[in-house]
Order: sequence, then C-alpha cells, then structure tokens
Amino acid sequence: MNAKKYVYFFGDGRAEGSAEMKDLLGSKGANLAEMTNIGIPVPPGFTISTEACIHYYANDGGYPDGLEDEIDENLARLEASTKKRFGDAKNPLLLSVRSGAAISMPGMMDTVLNIGLTDESVAGIARRVENERFAYDSYRRFVQMFGNVVLGMEHSNFEQILEEKKQSRGVTMDTELDSEDLKDLVSRYKKLVEKETGRAFPEDPKEQLRMTINAVFESWNTDRAITYRALNNIPQDLGTGVNVQAMVFGNMGADSGTGVCFTRDPATGENVFYGEYLLNAQGEDVVAGLRTPETLDQLEVEMPDIYGELAAIREKLERHYHDVQDMEFTIESGTLYMLQTRTGKRTAQAAVKTAVDMVDEGLIDKETAILRVEPDQLDQLLHPMIDPKATVDVLAKGLAASPGAAVGKVVFSSHRALELDEKGEKVILVRLETSPDDVGGMAASQGILTARGGMTSHAAIVGRGMGKCCVVGCNEIDVDEKANRFTVGDVVVNEGDFITLDGTKGDVILGTTDLVEPEMTGDFETLMGWASRAKRLGVRTNADTPHDSEVARNFGAEGIGLCRTEHMFFGKERLPIVQQMILADDEGSRRKSLDKLMPMQKEDFKDIFEVMKDLPVTIRLLDPPLHEFLPKTAEEVREAASRMNMPVDELKSIIQNLHEINPMLGHRGCRLGITYPEIYEMQVQAIFEAACELAAEKDGHRVIPEIMIPLVGHINELRFTKERLVETAGAVMERYGTEIEYMVGTMIEVPRAAVTADVIATEAEFFSFGTNDLTQMTFGFSRDDVGKFLPFYLKEGILESDPFVTIDQAGVGKLVEMATQKGRSTKPDLKIGICGEHGGNPTSVEFCHRTGLDYVSCSPFRIPIAILAAAQAAVKERDA
Amino acid sequence: MNAKKYVYFFGDGRAEGSAEMKDLLGSKGANLAEMTNIGIPVPPGFTISTEACIHYYANDGGYPDGLEDEIDENLARLEASTKKRFGDAKNPLLLSVRSGAAISMPGMMDTVLNIGLTDESVAGIARRVENERFAYDSYRRFVQMFGNVVLGMEHSNFEQILEEKKQSRGVTMDTELDSEDLKDLVSRYKKLVEKETGRAFPEDPKEQLRMTINAVFESWNTDRAITYRALNNIPQDLGTGVNVQAMVFGNMGADSGTGVCFTRDPATGENVFYGEYLLNAQGEDVVAGLRTPETLDQLEVEMPDIYGELAAIREKLERHYHDVQDMEFTIESGTLYMLQTRTGKRTAQAAVKTAVDMVDEGLIDKETAILRVEPDQLDQLLHPMIDPKATVDVLAKGLAASPGAAVGKVVFSSHRALELDEKGEKVILVRLETSPDDVGGMAASQGILTARGGMTSHAAIVGRGMGKCCVVGCNEIDVDEKANRFTVGDVVVNEGDFITLDGTKGDVILGTTDLVEPEMTGDFETLMGWASRAKRLGVRTNADTPHDSEVARNFGAEGIGLCRTEHMFFGKERLPIVQQMILADDEGSRRKSLDKLMPMQKEDFKDIFEVMKDLPVTIRLLDPPLHEFLPKTAEEVREAASRMNMPVDELKSIIQNLHEINPMLGHRGCRLGITYPEIYEMQVQAIFEAACELAAEKDGHRVIPEIMIPLVGHINELRFTKERLVETAGAVMERYGTEIEYMVGTMIEVPRAAVTADVIATEAEFFSFGTNDLTQMTFGFSRDDVGKFLPFYLKEGILESDPFVTIDQAGVGKLVEMATQKGRSTKPDLKIGICGEHGGNPTSVEFCHRTGLDYVSCSPFRIPIAILAAAQAAVKERDA
Repeated sequence: MNAKKYVYFFGDGRAEGSAEMKDLLGSKGANLAEMTNIGIPVPPGFTISTEACIHYYANDGGYPDGLEDEIDENLARLEASTKKRFGDAKNPLLLSVRSGAAISMPGMMDTVLNIGLTDESVAGIARRVENERFAYDSYRRFVQMFGNVVLGMEHSNFEQILEEKKQSRGVTMDTELDSEDLKDLVSRYKKLVEKETGRAFPEDPKEQLRMTINAVFESWNTDRAITYRALNNIPQDLGTGVNVQAMVFGNMGADSGTGVCFTRDPATGENVFYGEYLLNAQGEDVVAGLRTPETLDQLEVEMPDIYGELAAIREKLERHYHDVQDMEFTIESGTLYMLQTRTGKRTAQAAVKTAVDMVDEGLIDKETAILRVEPDQLDQLLHPMIDPKATVDVLAKGLAASPGAAVGKVVFSSHRALELDEKGEKVILVRLETSPDDVGGMAASQGILTARGGMTSHAAIVGRGMGKCCVVGCNEIDVDEKANRFTVGDVVVNEGDFITLDGTKGDVILGTTDLVEPEMTGDFETLMGWASRAKRLGVRTNADTPHDSEVARNFGAEGIGLCRTEHMFFGKERLPIVQQMILADDEGSRRKSLDKLMPMQKEDFKDIFEVMKDLPVTIRLLDPPLHEFLPKTAEEVREAASRMNMPVDELKSIIQNLHEINPMLGHRGCRLGITYPEIYEMQVQAIFEAACELAAEKDGHRVIPEIMIPLVGHINELRFTKERLVETAGAVMERYGTEIEYMVGTMIEVPRAAVTADVIATEAEFFSFGTNDLTQMTFGFSRDDVGKFLPFYLKEGILESDPFVTIDQAGVGKLVEMATQKGRSTKPDLKIGICGEHGGNPTSVEFCHRTGLDYVSCSPFRIPIAILAAAQAAVKERDA
Repeated sequence: MNAKKYVYFFGDGRAEGSAEMKDLLGSKGANLAEMTNIGIPVPPGFTISTEACIHYYANDGGYPDGLEDEIDENLARLEASTKKRFGDAKNPLLLSVRSGAAISMPGMMDTVLNIGLTDESVAGIARRVENERFAYDSYRRFVQMFGNVVLGMEHSNFEQILEEKKQSRGVTMDTELDSEDLKDLVSRYKKLVEKETGRAFPEDPKEQLRMTINAVFESWNTDRAITYRALNNIPQDLGTGVNVQAMVFGNMGADSGTGVCFTRDPATGENVFYGEYLLNAQGEDVVAGLRTPETLDQLEVEMPDIYGELAAIREKLERHYHDVQDMEFTIESGTLYMLQTRTGKRTAQAAVKTAVDMVDEGLIDKETAILRVEPDQLDQLLHPMIDPKATVDVLAKGLAASPGAAVGKVVFSSHRALELDEKGEKVILVRLETSPDDVGGMAASQGILTARGGMTSHAAIVGRGMGKCCVVGCNEIDVDEKANRFTVGDVVVNEGDFITLDGTKGDVILGTTDLVEPEMTGDFETLMGWASRAKRLGVRTNADTPHDSEVARNFGAEGIGLCRTEHMFFGKERLPIVQQMILADDEGSRRKSLDKLMPMQKEDFKDIFEVMKDLPVTIRLLDPPLHEFLPKTAEEVREAASRMNMPVDELKSIIQNLHEINPMLGHRGCRLGITYPEIYEMQVQAIFEAACELAAEKDGHRVIPEIMIPLVGHINELRFTKERLVETAGAVMERYGTEIEYMVGTMIEVPRAAVTADVIATEAEFFSFGTNDLTQMTFGFSRDDVGKFLPFYLKEGILESDPFVTIDQAGVGKLVEMATQKGRSTKPDLKIGICGEHGGNPTSVEFCHRTGLDYVSCSPFRIPIAILAAAQAAVKERDA
C-alpha cells in the first residue's frame, strides 16, 4: 500500500516542497522549501501538510494513518542534518513549531519556540553554549509559551509570577534576573501548570511536539480565526500547515541578532533595502518594543559580511519571486539564517510605484504590473488621509462609511455649516442622522459624522457619492442638536471645537490632526493608462450633478451609467413644488406643479449633458416612492401645511395614506410612472428639450441620452411607459426640428425581470442591472433591516461576504447571467451594464467581465478602482 | 387571388360554419350555424368573423379587402332565402345585428333590431302584416335603439319624448298609443337625432347596416367591456363576431311570442324542461319585466304543437351538445324559430347534479363529468348563502373576502361577541380592522365586517381560514367603536341591530335575510369520489388547529401541508409569555419563557397529530418577525408594560428598536431561528415530545411530522438549522426510547432559494413552495401595499390577473419550474409541494400538476376545489 504523504522535509540544500505548493504546505512552508531549493540558508525542518489538518478536523482530532511514523522519520532526518538529538542530554535538538496557512492570517495563529527543552536537555544546552542564563531563560520562555499556547493558560498568570520574582529580587528588568532566579521561575511555572491543568508539565520532548502540533491544528478554528476569515473572505476549510524547524537563536550574544527586512520600501515603494534588526535578541523582543531596533545601514557598519550576504539574498529573492519580499532573518553566532520570506505588503503608493518600476526594470511585464495593485487599495490614493506618522487619540468609533480623513470645527446644523463655510472655515457636520435637507450642508463640510444609521444611510450614500469623508452610526456619541454639543462619556465637544474624522477606519479623533494629500504621481497615471488599454469592460459613473460628472470624467469615466433624477427633486426651492405635486387631487393640478419643475430639470440635464459631451448619459426616471418627498417630523409637517395653506390634520392624513408597510416593494419606480404618466412625461420633456437646446446652442455638441425605466418586472410595464416616452420625445424633437439619437432601456432589478428577460429585451434597447435592489429581492433582505442578522451570518460563516458589497455570484449572479443570456437570445446586440454599488467592487467587476456585460457604473471616486479591476479581469482571462 | 373569407352564411338547412368555429364566428354565430346544420329552424343570416373585427382595430376602423363585397353577396343570398328585399317598399327584409364573441360577455355588447326600416319600407311592412301600429311601433323602437347603440345618444332623451307624448295623450302605457302617435314619435325621434348628431337619420338601409356593424365592432372596446374582460381573465385581442340575421317577430299577435328555456333546471339541475315565455312580445319586453312571463307548462296548454316542437328541439340539442342548453326562441305567427342556443349557466348544485345524472344517462363519461363543474363554483356548496329568492337592500359594499352569508346582531368588540355567543345569540363582528386579539371573537361570530384592510388583511385571511363569511375594506361604513355604532350616510346601525353579510359578493344588508344551507347531496359525494380517483396530485391542507385539521380531513385532505406554528403563540395566556421571551436580555431569560411555552405547543401538536393519524403533518417553524407579537396601540403598550413591571418608555424604546422599515424582508423566518436557535429548539422539542407521547399512549398511532424551515435563501441557513434540529429531535427520541419517522425540508419562497435549488436540495428532504412570499419577492410587490397600483394594472391590462390569486406562470412559475427541475437534478426523489394560497386556486393547481409537483396545500374549505382542479388537470392531460 502506498500511504499518502503528509510531511515534507527541507534542509541540506534540498526540499521536497516548493513555492507552488502553498495550498498543501501553507504559504510559509512552501516558501521555506523554495528558499532551501534555491540555496538560501534556512534552518532545516519539515512541514506537515494542510491535508493532515483537514483530516484532523474531519476525524475528531484523529491523525491520518502513517502521519505519526512520517513525523518520526522526518525528525530522525532532522537530527541527522543538524547532528543533534531531540531531547538529548548533551546536544539536544530544539524545535520551533509555527502554523502557516495558504493565505496569510497575521497574528491569528500560534507559534511555540524551544520545544525539546526538559530539565535534562536544558542542562545540555547550558553546557554546550556555555551560558546557563541563556539556557534557563529559553526554558522559562518555553514553559510560559507552551502553557499559554498549548495548554490554554492565561499569559498574565505567568507574568504575575515573573513580577513577584522581580520584586522579591528588587529588580525591574527581566535581564537583571540571573540563572538561579530563572531556574526557580521554571519550577514555579511548572507548579502553576500542574495546579491549573491537573497534569505535570510534559517532560517527554515527543509529547511536547505532539501536543504543540495539535495546538496549531486547533488554532485554525479559534473564534477569532474564524471571524478573521469570515471578514476577509477566506474559506473556512483550507486548514493550516505546521512547520517544524530546528531552532536558531538570535539571542546568543553580541554576534547574534534577529530582524525583518523588505526588498523595497513598503511605504513609498522606493527601490531601497529597507529593514530593522536587534542584536542579541529573539523575534518576540522586537515585537515587545522594549528596545528600539536599528536600521539596516547600521548592520552594514556593524556586520558588513552578514549585511553583504543579506543584500545578496535580497537580490536573489526578488529576482526569483519577481516581487517585493518581506523576510525574517536570524543571526546565530555570526551565521545568517532566513526564517521566512513572503510577498511584502505595501501601501497603495508603494504598490503602484513598484509595479511601474519593475516594468521599467524588465522584472515584470505590464500585465503583471496591472495585477500587482489591489484595486480597492487605490481608494487610499483618492482621498486625503491622516498622516501615518501622526499619533491619534481615538475618542469614539463608528462605521467607516466613506473613506478619507477630514479636520474641522464641529457644527450641528447644515445652516451653520453653510454659514461658516462661507467665511472660509472648515467644518465637520455632526448630526443624529442626515436628511435630504442636509445635502447642502454636507457639501459645505469637510466630513460628516452621524450617531445613527448604517452603511447605506442617507449620510453614508451621499457622503460616498460626494467622495466626502463620513463616519456614521457612531453610537458612542450622544448628540444634543439643540444644545449644540455632543458628549462621549465625560468628554463634551461643543460647536466650534475641532475634531478629526477618519472615514477609512471609522475613527472620531479629538482636536486637529495632520492630513496628507497623496499625490497623483506619474506612476499612478502610467499604471491607469495600461489598465485602461487592457480592459474590455466599459466603465461609467453614477452621477447626478455636473460636478460629479466632471470628477468622474477626469478619472476616466466613459459615460454616465446612472443619473438619478430624484436627487434633483430635493433642492430647497423644488421640494415644496414636488410636495404640491404629490398632494394634488387630480391630474390637472399635478400637471401644474410638474410644469413648474420642468424648466428646472431641463437646466439640470443641460448642465450634465454639457460636461458629458459625446458620451452616453443614462437617465433613470423617477424611482422612489412619493412619500419620501413628504415632510417627516411634526415640525416639518406643520411648516409644510402652513406653506401650502392646508390644515395640519389634512396633511397628516394624506401622509398617513401614502405610508407603506414595505416601501421597498411598494408604489415606486415605473409603478409611479404608470399610475401618474404625467410625471415621466415631464421628465422626458425636460431631457429632450435640454438635448435639443444644447444641440442648437453648441454646434457639434453630441448628446446621447439613454433613458432608463426603473423597477420593470413585466414587459407590459416597459411597453406602457416606453410608448408614451417615445411619443413625448418625438413631439419635442419635432418642435425643435432636431433629431437626437437616444435609447430606451430598463433596469433589471426585480427578479421577475431577470426571469423574463428574453421577453423584456424585445422592448428594451439596453439593460442595466440594479444589483442593489436585485440583491434585496433575490435574498429577501431589506438593506435597512439586515443589521439585525447579517453581522451574525457573516460571523457564523452562513454567508461568506456581505452580498450588498460583493455580488452573490451563486444566487444574484445566476440571475444576472440568466438575464444576460436570455436578453441576448432575443436581441443579440442588447447593451448591458450594471449600476448597483457592486459596479465599483473589484470582485463584482470581475464577475461582470466574465458574464459578458458591456459596462459597469460606479460612483466617481471608484472609477479608477473599477478600471483597474476590469483590466485585471481581462488580463486574467487572457492568462487562463 | 384567393381572397380571405370573412362572412359565413347560414340558412335553408345548411351553414358554412359549425359549432367548432367559435374562435372565428363567436359563440353565438357558431351555434346558429350548428343549429342550422342539424335541422333546427333558425332564421337565416350570416356571421362576420372575429378576424374582420381584429382587422378593423389593427387598421383604424378599416375593413379588410373584399369584406364589403362579401356582405353584399351574403345579403343577396339572404334576400333570396327569405324572398324579401332589404329596403323594399313592398316586402322589405328586416335584419337583426348582434355581437357575439368566442367567450360570452353577457350584457356587455350591443344588439340592434329591425334594421332596414325606412319611411318607405315601414309602409310596406304595415301593408304586408296588415297592422300599421305594429309597423310604426317597430320603427319607433328601431330609431331609438339605433340612436342609442349606433349614434351614442342617451336612451333617456328618447324616453322623455315618449313620456311627453303619453302625457299629452293622457295615457300611461306604451300600448295605449295608436299608430298616429307612433308615427309622430318617429318623426320627433328623427328630429332629435338630427339635432344631436348634426346629420339626418340614415334612410339608406345599407348605410344603417354598415353603421350598425361598425357599432358592434366598436362595442368590443368600450371601457366596461375592457374592464369586464380584465376582471374575468378574457384576452383583450379576441375580437367579436357580428351576426346579421333576418328578423322574426314575436309581437305579431296572439299566435306570436318569445321566450327562453333550459334543457334542465339551471338552479337545481333537475332533468325537467325549464323556461318561460310571453305571447305577443319581443325579447326586450321580457327583459323590461312589465308583464310576468308564463312557464312552459302554460305553453303546452296554449300551443301544444309549438310546445311539442320545442320539446323535441330540447332533446335534440342536449343530445347533440351533450350538455345543458340555454335557448332563445320566437314564435312568429305560429311558426317556431330558434334564435340562440348556448351552454346553460347553472348553479354549483345544478352543475354537480347534471354532471352525475348525465353519466347515469350515458350521455357523458366520468371524465367529462369531472370537467363539467368549475372548481371555484364548489365554494357555493361549502357555505351558507343568501336565499336566491330573497330581495335584499344593499346598504354598503366592501371586498368579498371570504364567501358565504351570515345574519346576526352587530357587535363592536370581540369581548361582546364572545359574551353574546355564550348566550346563544348570533353576532356579526364589526371592526375598523381586526388584530390577533380578535381571533376568539371572530370564531364566536357568524361573520366579520371591517372598514379597513384588503383581501389579505388579517380579517380576510383568518376569515377564509375559518371558512367564515367576511367583508373587509368597506370604506362606506363609518365605524365608531367607542360609541358602539356604525353609520352609512344617514343610516345608523347600533350594537344589537341585525345585519346580513354576503361574503361572496361583498354586500352589507340591513336587517335579517333568509339563508340557505346547501345540502351535500349524494351527487356531490359521487363526483368528488370520481375526482379523487382521477387526480394525480396530492391535496393537503393548511391548518393549525385540530378543528381545521378535522374539517379538511373530512373534505378529503391527505395530510397537512402547512401548519403555522406562530398562530399558537397568539393565545390569550401565551402572548404575554411570548412577549416576555422577545423582551429577554439574554439567552438564559429567553429560555425561561420558552420553557413555559414548550408544554403548550406540545399539547397543540398532540391534538393535531391525533386528528391526522397516519397522515403527514408539515410543520413550519416560527416565521413572522418578533415585533408582530408586541403590543401596538398606546393602551396595549401601557397594559403590557404594567404587566411586565417595566417602565412604559423602556418598552416603547424596545418596540422602536424592533421596528423594521420593510418587515417583509427583515428579521424573520429562519433568520430568527438562526440568531435565536433556542426558539426553534423549543419548537422541535415540542413536536417530538408530542409525537413520542402519542406513540406511547396510542398503540399503532402513526405520526409523520415533516418539519419545514421557512425563508431559506442559502444552503447554509438550512444546514445551520437542520443540524440543531436533528440533534434536538434525536435527544428527545432517545429520552422516550421511541423512533419517529420524520423529514426535514424547506420552504422555497425566496427567489435565491429557487435559483440555487440544486444546492439546497442536497440538505432538504422536501420543498414546499411558499408562493405568497415568492410572488412578493419575484415581482417586488408588497401585498400590503399593492392596493395603490395593482387595481390600475389590472384595469389597464398591464397584468392579466392578480398574481396573488392566480400564479404568474411566466415569472414566478418559471422559478417554480426551475427549482423543481434543479431540486430533482440533485435529489431525484425530492418531495415537492406548494402551500401558498395558490394551492386552492384551480388555474394554479393545474400549473402545479403540469410542473410535476407532488401535492398542493390549501385552506380546509378549498380542499374539494383543489381536488376537482387536480382531477381536471389529470383528465385534460390524458385527453391531450
């Protein structure tokens, strides 16, 4: 019988594994093998595969057949390689055991060092290195680490004993304890272990190793690891590898040390050797931060040979991996060992610079460069941010609703925001929650902070749309809008006090903080140029103001994919007219109000058409339920009633009548356009008058309106609205004597529309997937209400990711695919796009590419992200 | 060129058409042709096909090529057959023109008689029949009918002139006017026509005919016809035929007459010749009701020969058509003519009796008998109804929410309903709207009337579930629950006053009315027996009380398809415990409340299991959002707070916290069961303890629970809940030492579940389509809010039918088909049913049959309907 192989050895210049075997060996194990194979000095060892871990979980903690034997065999090989023996009294082999999954989960999983130390072997170490203190300090650390990681004891219990010891010895630093103190500590630690666990500390090295391996397996499924994976979209069933390696010590004296280094600067991307190290120290000392590490320049001075060796390894690894490497090294008594290499994490700026530089250096091609930058990372380059060097004092945390950072004086009303803005002051608008009335004040502010609301609240959506820093749902702050102050515990923040918001993290910070405006370097432009040429998918923007349209166009938008006309109804001078229209008793009075709105909408469209010269502008006719435009609070109702000369009770009763149990599934979208055709008629008239007038005013100015009917679920809804639309458009064009090229299409956002897309396509010239609503209806999830269960679903892994952020390919995506295929089955040249928020989400953009959509549409500040994601999808497809 | 044929002649014992040609000739025209062919005396004539009408609409009122020539040719043939000439001065041919579509639309469309009368031909008639008064009376009627139907003038304008004439002549009856009076009337009528239309009354018979044909075409598209078709699911594009026929006169003297007759009694189904007639009268006189018609017995006495001839025709037609016929006849001067025969409409009772009788008589087979009864009609047999002979005075109209009729004293509270019920008084519960608190009062009442709410309001759903007469949304009544009275205009109805409700029509009637309890005759049982044997589809019931379960079982239910467990939470002594559970801070306190509820739920299940011995019982775990169980009104909140010893504001704030923007898409169904697993755990425990205890108490009593998880959209939701369910069930069974055979399945009611049904089927043993919610989410229609646009959609023909009543086969149905096929692709023996309200809708039942479902489930009172519909689907499939 040919038993399955679970253990892979590396050492003596050869390894059974390689960098390609990450799934099987984990990332760390695969790279240890790879480094061994290319002649980098790595302490020998072996990796137990992720399959063993998966088997362990599938079999209630049982090992697969043969694994124990394999471990024994590899241990023997390791002893032969190091010429030491595990548990030996004279020349003992000590081991490190580290977890390592295919996808890095920093800080999530466990490591145990110095395995193999026992009362017997510790004496052997002491004799061999002629340093008893070192030996017992290692032993003490081992017992503590094993107790904590393997036996699940509280770290603090050990620390307490250590503190007591130091006090009784009248010292303050660990290093001031001598070897006798340390021996005593080991003995006390072991007593604690026996007392707490009911069993003596294991003196058998093999038992120590087995227990540690099990602990690493177990660490895969701790709550925090599960949560981390859920949050980072890492599958829960990968399992971890276990790396068992001969120990090397950086703390053996002045010719020893340990450090980390990057092949290039991970913050700026500059091609300089970057890193830091500590002499006579172990990795945990670097982390503890008690001593300040030196830079590599110092190493060049202190240990020129070692530095030279390390610099050569830097060159070798980068040329081997064609990417920036993040390496750990240890110097043991003048010998350099590499403990790890991995792809170096980097800032957006560094990612862009290294990608472009490496193309220039001939290290990678442009396609690889495109793949080297995480599209979402670009967000960092598009907003001001808190200076990474600044130390901040976080007062409260909310939801990171719209990225970037902002500093300003606190104000509690839009009115005040506008006032101070006019005086040239920078303000942060703080509200319980925002409403359409606040839009002006939000625009005048540097950032927005609300106590209520979620990621899709008014403040969040408008903030993101404006590309404005925004923190919402910050429950910790207690806002008193009347008294013009908010409090967090004892801290009172009054109007005029400065705060800083970090919309990328959701932090509220007291006082001012330095911000940096990341520069749009030439590298960024270069990379985006490559991306634009590489992509197949069109990228449009969701915009309903000339300003947003211009921002998006400058970022590379190829048209407007969604212009929401209802936002134009919220203006201060318009809302009262809109309300009058809604409250009208009959079509005649409704038309009177609409007649007043028409010229205003026309001007809106003209301004947008002007910016979007020669590019298509997709305009969605009115979508939200009418009650959204009506006054909400008692005061607003009173005010509106008096303005309209109407008894308050009558207005209240009308509002009550328009109230809906499930507004999401109510009287909105084309249902409004069908029951009140005069509303769409006015909008279509405004669109075509704007287009005709612009064509007359500006010679050769091409306007390409694409008119979109929302919420269509049945072909007849599209027929009904389209028929009237074409009639109105025709009448306007005839009146102006101008021919405007235009299209009529529909949103596909109701599941029924997707299911009957073949029929709907007979009347539609284009489809635009409204994946926000499509997700709501396909899952039956109200975005406003998922807060009660979605976080739990993500935590428990019931859903892998938030379907409102990343498109649910198995469900919603299936409907998108079905509708695309059905739609093109009856209309092969049907133009198809997507205008939900998924249009700016890289994974979703890749999905749209694969599904064969023509374009995605997203908010202006996500245009570069979508372009890069689209380019990556195209490159990956070509590679496949 | 072979021109298309549009006109079909009948006469002289032969016809170009036949009964099979209803689509082309309309029902009336096809039957006139058929009668002619089998030798029944029919006045000759011709039918213009529905295709001509369709062409007329497609071409702005234009005739197809050749139609005018065909009409002329057929008119010539008719003149030859009758030996009269159209418009002749001596022996004029007079014509009737009647519309006739493929599907009968009684009273919707138009008829004009006596076409061909002119100042010239009227004299010819007078001379030929030697009766000047008859001639001018016919002429007067013609001008009036033509003016009204063809020229669109108000009927009342003519009536006014007639009234003036009678006054000036000092008479009261039309018949008292002499021929001179009538001549004068004709002349005045014509002046009115000229004045109102600006054109003289047409004196050219051919123009009269052409104008009338156009008027019949136009009558297809009157508003009321469109609405009628929309309401009755008749396609809008069928078009009408036009029947042009030689006039015969029943008003030519004592040896003339006219009447209608049925081959069997249409009310009882008895095999007796049934009909009535008037001597010396035209059809419109029968309708006007000024003279009381005689029965056929009298005709046998007065005109034995004619009666004999008619009786022979009765036999011949019924044997020819194998069905009850409804015939019109006219006797002109001793000669019998048949003007129409059609399938006789009949009551449910008559339909059942004739179907069974005709099988006994060997006239039809059992399969045909099954097809002879409209399943929906059976509803009439299952509830008391207002005596058809009673004259009623309708006070107000609401929505016909639950069929049947009820008489009782008005009460305005459930409390009072229960009080009076205990005293043996019959009451009608009248409320603004009902809430779960009213369920007891509703059960104690004969019927329910609400001022608010729609067809799916609480009152409507509970009413239908109880099989209790219910009228809802009766806006006309003004309910003052405090003053214990309601008013309709001036009429005040106080507590204790009697009213009658007709839940089949939606009528509210003042005072008592006689009701009839239709008998469940042997025929009904016989027919249902045939249906049960013929069907393939299983029929289960939606029931959550032992009483409903028993009713359904007696009606033939083969199990419970949906037992809603939440209804058990609403009991008076339970709701407070449920509320306590909801308000619990932590799992511990929640479990305490659940522990109190468990024994109660167990008893519920035991009672139901007992009734449903040996039949499957599908139990749906808790589905509605928790806030549905919390107090709503300020008073309820105060009361609950004091009961729970909690500050009112705290309770209010908790209720506010649980409030959802779109509860339909919120925290409900398995989302509750996942976030609070202890709730489902309690329910599963109750189910299995009930089953185990019953098994122990009653030897051989087989309990077959099928446990259903609601609102699953993702396989992981089912996995999560199923895992815990199986564990709990196993623990209970082990504790009792009993093995219960059970299944775990899921609702398919979220579109995502349908789309991913192949994956979901891997964990589900059965699917049950919740087509109510599936329709809501697939359309994006909130049932609670569609009232604002659905009626308009139906009126405008945007939707053909209400998708909550009849399953939308093109959209929702596609998802049902997809899920069925996908589910069985991974689990071939997957059991699949439907438990939405569609399960009791005949068209939807047929769809379920075709889709290959295993069963439908519906409310107890719809079981026979579903059985019959399922049988019809099976018979039609075999026939096809």
